[in-house]
Amino acid sequence: MSGPGREDVERAAVALEGVAHRTPLFRSRTLDRLLRAEVVFKGEHLQRGGAFKFRGAWYALSRLDADARARGVVSWSSGNHAGGLALAGRLLSVPVTVVMPHDAPTSKRAAVEGYGATVVESEAVRREEVGMELARRKGWTPIPPYDHDDIIAGQGTAAAELLEQVDGLDLLLTPVGGGGLLAGSALAASAYPSVEVVGVEPAVADDAARSLQQGRIVVLDRVPDTIADGLRTRFLGQRNFAILRRLGVRVVTVREEDILRALRWLWWRMKLVVEPSAAVPLAALLSGALAVEGRRVGVILSGGNVDPPTLLPRLLQAEGDEHLPSG
Amino acid sequence: MSGPGREDVERAAVALEGVAHRTPLFRSRTLDRLLRAEVVFKGEHLQRGGAFKFRGAWYALSRLDADARARGVVSWSSGNHAGGLALAGRLLSVPVTVVMPHDAPTSKRAAVEGYGATVVESEAVRREEVGMELARRKGWTPIPPYDHDDIIAGQGTAAAELLEQVDGLDLLLTPVGGGGLLAGSALAASAYPSVEVVGVEPAVADDAARSLQQGRIVVLDRVPDTIADGLRTRFLGQRNFAILRRLGVRVVTVREEDILRALRWLWWRMKLVVEPSAAVPLAALLSGALAVEGRRVGVILSGGNVDPPTLLPRLLQAEGDEHLPSG
Repeated sequence: MSGPGREDVERAAVALEGVAHRTPLFRSRTLDRLLRAEVVFKGEHLQRGGAFKFRGAWYALSRLDADARARGVVSWSSGNHAGGLALAGRLLSVPVTVVMPHDAPTSKRAAVEGYGATVVESEAVRREEVGMELARRKGWTPIPPYDHDDIIAGQGTAAAELLEQVDGLDLLLTPVGGGGLLAGSALAASAYPSVEVVGVEPAVADDAARSLQQGRIVVLDRVPDTIADGLRTRFLGQRNFAILRRLGVRVVTVREEDILRALRWLWWRMKLVVEPSAAVPLAALLSGALAVEGRRVGVILSGGNVDPPTLLPRLLQAEGDEHLPSG
Repeated sequence: MSGPGREDVERAAVALEGVAHRTPLFRSRTLDRLLRAEVVFKGEHLQRGGAFKFRGAWYALSRLDADARARGVVSWSSGNHAGGLALAGRLLSVPVTVVMPHDAPTSKRAAVEGYGATVVESEAVRREEVGMELARRKGWTPIPPYDHDDIIAGQGTAAAELLEQVDGLDLLLTPVGGGGLLAGSALAASAYPSVEVVGVEPAVADDAARSLQQGRIVVLDRVPDTIADGLRTRFLGQRNFAILRRLGVRVVTVREEDILRALRWLWWRMKLVVEPSAAVPLAALLSGALAVEGRRVGVILSGGNVDPPTLLPRLLQAEGDEHLPSG
């Protein structure tokens, strides 16, 4: 297994031109002053389907031959991969089935069905097994959420764009769950030797940091209970892990309260509706887990799909003074 | 009183270059499909100080001579004008005093003080009187929130930018409270004969619509109780009214529930943290109060300063399905 390289990210970028949005950048003077750094956020929450996941999903479907497209695909995800794949399936006329846990938020399920995909319910821990069994029985192509060459290459196009949009980045940060976005970003950044790539994950879901330390994929006992619902994965993908090791990517962890503080900063100061997972890299900057003084930092805001009835009460509970305007 | 013309907006735009942000534009495919129109939003919620108000405030201060700047200025506002003026004062080293009502939200007051301005408390209805009396006694220059030539010219620069950024607009919408943004926008658009300018206000604060119908400034009995807290003015400014009449500007009204629906659309579908006042023009589109099929429409998102403890519970109460992602 050699896995995808940076030329695969370049190919994916060409394929996605005119399909995925070239998402805009956001800055905050106040943040830059506070951190004595230049931080540029790439707004993938404004991507189609509300998250970077559309990139990999569409690219993976676009690479299937006519026969496989006609038969259809199957995946498992309760979040943005499900939505991105369902949207990509609609655009490319590929039938999509997604295995979701019984207790997936109604809003996520409704979104997937709204794009015309079929939802199959299963227990959360058996999702992949159920999906692979459906693939075998029905002749559907499995499109896993992150452990897949085309998915990794597609996700890398967000970082590739950011690196084109901003000169002289020193550091590139993304959240890490299964490692699709982080591995793809590392491939994209490997064309820029001076750019360091760092993944950030919740401390309660620190399998990626431990995996890289121990040199083997660490599997969490249970689905981690983090507010960053996009990062509730128990282990890195094998392809993703291999890329992260090969390219020397570092992963740091942040506490739940730091994620909430970063989320409030992005909402109230920067006026961006992003999901908690997207706030995880900023949490590393605000908490000091990563020192960035004097550096130019790129951050991928991974998505903006929130479930207001779940999230708003937590935002209110944690209310700080970040809603005050600033210069 | 001849009042400002479109050349004053042009002068203000030159003065504000490099000072005010050239704010970005936002689109929604789903909205365009729904309305069968092209709607472009100008993100003044990302303006310095979190609202378009900074433009007029800074421009008005920049026009004072050295003597007047050294003596200082006074105004009255419980909202974005206070914040914009305080920030402009800090940048131009002009002492700023703002008369605010006793019951102004703590967050608004803290913002004004955070910029280094002085807050004087008064009863809400006596604010202007108290401010003018302070101006007389202390030698401070009064900078009213909207009934002022330079303020109107400065606010018009947001529309001037939008008209430069988007070719072929048919219609330009802004919220209307005291009429600073609407009158300034009408002046800016008077350079483009094919652009119609329409103001939108809450039905419970319909003084602007009635004033234009009756040909005289209608004064509301009391401060209107609308969720759009930036539009709780009781009457149009005289200069503003004269400009709106002269340029044939129309004003339409929207219900509170339509404002909330538009607000949810902007937050959950477009991922933009805007304040309720900024959602008022979109409310006119979603409710059908303004038919725009086949037209290219520009909307100024006036600001993004919200008080989360007040607003989030109302957003939750009114929860619809706008948080579902879309294509």
